Amino acid sequence: MQSNTTCSDEETYQVRKLEITDKNKGFMELLHDEFQKICDSVSNDEFQKRFEELKSYGDDHVIGVIEDVASSKIVATGSVFIEKKFVRNCGKVGHIEDVVVDSSARGLQLGKKVVGFLADHARLTGCYKVILDCSADNKAFYEKCGFKEKEVQMVKFKLYDIFSHNFVGLKITHVQLQISLIIILLNALIITRFVI
Amino acid sequence: MQSNTTCSDEETYQVRKLEITDKNKGFMELLHDEFQKICDSVSNDEFQKRFEELKSYGDDHVIGVIEDVASSKIVATGSVFIEKKFVRNCGKVGHIEDVVVDSSARGLQLGKKVVGFLADHARLTGCYKVILDCSADNKAFYEKCGFKEKEVQMVKFKLYDIFSHNFVGLKITHVQLQISLIIILLNALIITRFVI
Repeated sequence: MQSNTTCSDEETYQVRKLEITDKNKGFMELLHDEFQKICDSVSNDEFQKRFEELKSYGDDHVIGVIEDVASSKIVATGSVFIEKKFVRNCGKVGHIEDVVVDSSARGLQLGKKVVGFLADHARLTGCYKVILDCSADNKAFYEKCGFKEKEVQMVKFKLYDIFSHNFVGLKITHVQLQISLIIILLNALIITRFVI
Repeated sequence: MQSNTTCSDEETYQVRKLEITDKNKGFMELLHDEFQKICDSVSNDEFQKRFEELKSYGDDHVIGVIEDVASSKIVATGSVFIEKKFVRNCGKVGHIEDVVVDSSARGLQLGKKVVGFLADHARLTGCYKVILDCSADNKAFYEKCGFKEKEVQMVKFKLYDIFSHNFVGLKITHVQLQISLIIILLNALIITRFVI
C-alpha cells in the first residue's frame, strides 16, 4: 500500500514495513526492552512462521519499522491491523498496537512518525477511524499525534497469565514461573501428607 | 472451534456463530438500533461479501450471535478477532468488538453469555488475554464478565467522519450529511458572490 519513505533530509531514518531480515537488526530486542514480555526466546523459525502468517494478511496487518540506516538498527516500530465490520455500512477500523521507540532514539519524533505511517496506512485502506489503547502516561503523546480520548480499555487475562503478567516487572520467564508453581504444588502435597 | 450451545434449559436462546441467513433474522437491525451507525443500507450482496471475507479468516475472526429460537430473531451479538503478535513469544490477543443485546431481551444475562462465548473462543485459540473498549457506563457490566480496567482508548477519525460521528446521535445519515454539506457550500458561494 505504501512505498518506503525517508523521514529526514539526510535519509538517516527510513520508515518502512517490517522485513524478514529485521530480526537481525534488533527488532525483537526493541520489543523486549520496551514490553519486557518474553520476546527473547523467539527462534528464527518461529519468527519466520509468524512473519509469513502476518504477510498472508496483506494490507490487513502491517508492521511498520524505522531503521537507523547508519547503524542498520531498528529503532522504532508499531503495528496496525484492519478490522472489517458490519456496522458503518460494512466499515473498516484500524487498530494500532505495540508502538515502541528505542530509548537511545527518543526526542527525534520517531514515535510520531511511526504512528503517522500506521494511521496513513489505515486511512489508505479505507478505515473510517483508527484506534489504540495506551497508558494514561502516554495520552499526551497520542494527543499530539491527533488522537482523542474516547473509551475505557478492559482486559481479561488467562488464569496462567494473571500470574506471569503481574511478575513481568520482575523479569520472571514462563519457565521460571512453571518451576515456581511446581515447587509450590510439591510443598502443598508434602504439607498435606504430614499435617493431615 | 466451538460447537453450537444452548444457554437455557428450555433451549430458548441459542448461542452460535453468525450464519449467512441471519441477515433475514434481524442481525443488521440489531446493530443499527444499538449503534445508529448507518447499518440500514447494506444490500444482500454487500452482506454476503463481508460475510465471506470474515469467514475466510476462519477462527481468527468470529461473530457470535444469540437467536431467540421461538421468534427466529437475533437478539444479541458480538465479535472477536485474534491478533497475532511478536511480543509474548509470538503471543495472540483476542479483541472483542460490537457487543449488542436487543432492548427487548435485556435482563436475561444474554450480554454476559455472548461475551463469554467470545472470550472462550479467544482462550481456545490460545490468546493470553482478551481485551475490549467500552464506555464508562458499561464498565460495571464488563467487570461482572471478569474484565478489569487497564488503559485508555484513543481514537482518530477521518475528517469526513468527524462530522458524521458527531451527528450520529441525531440519526443523520451519510446521504443527509452530504446534502447538508453541499447546501453549506452553495450558500458560501452565493454569499461570496454578493458580498465580495
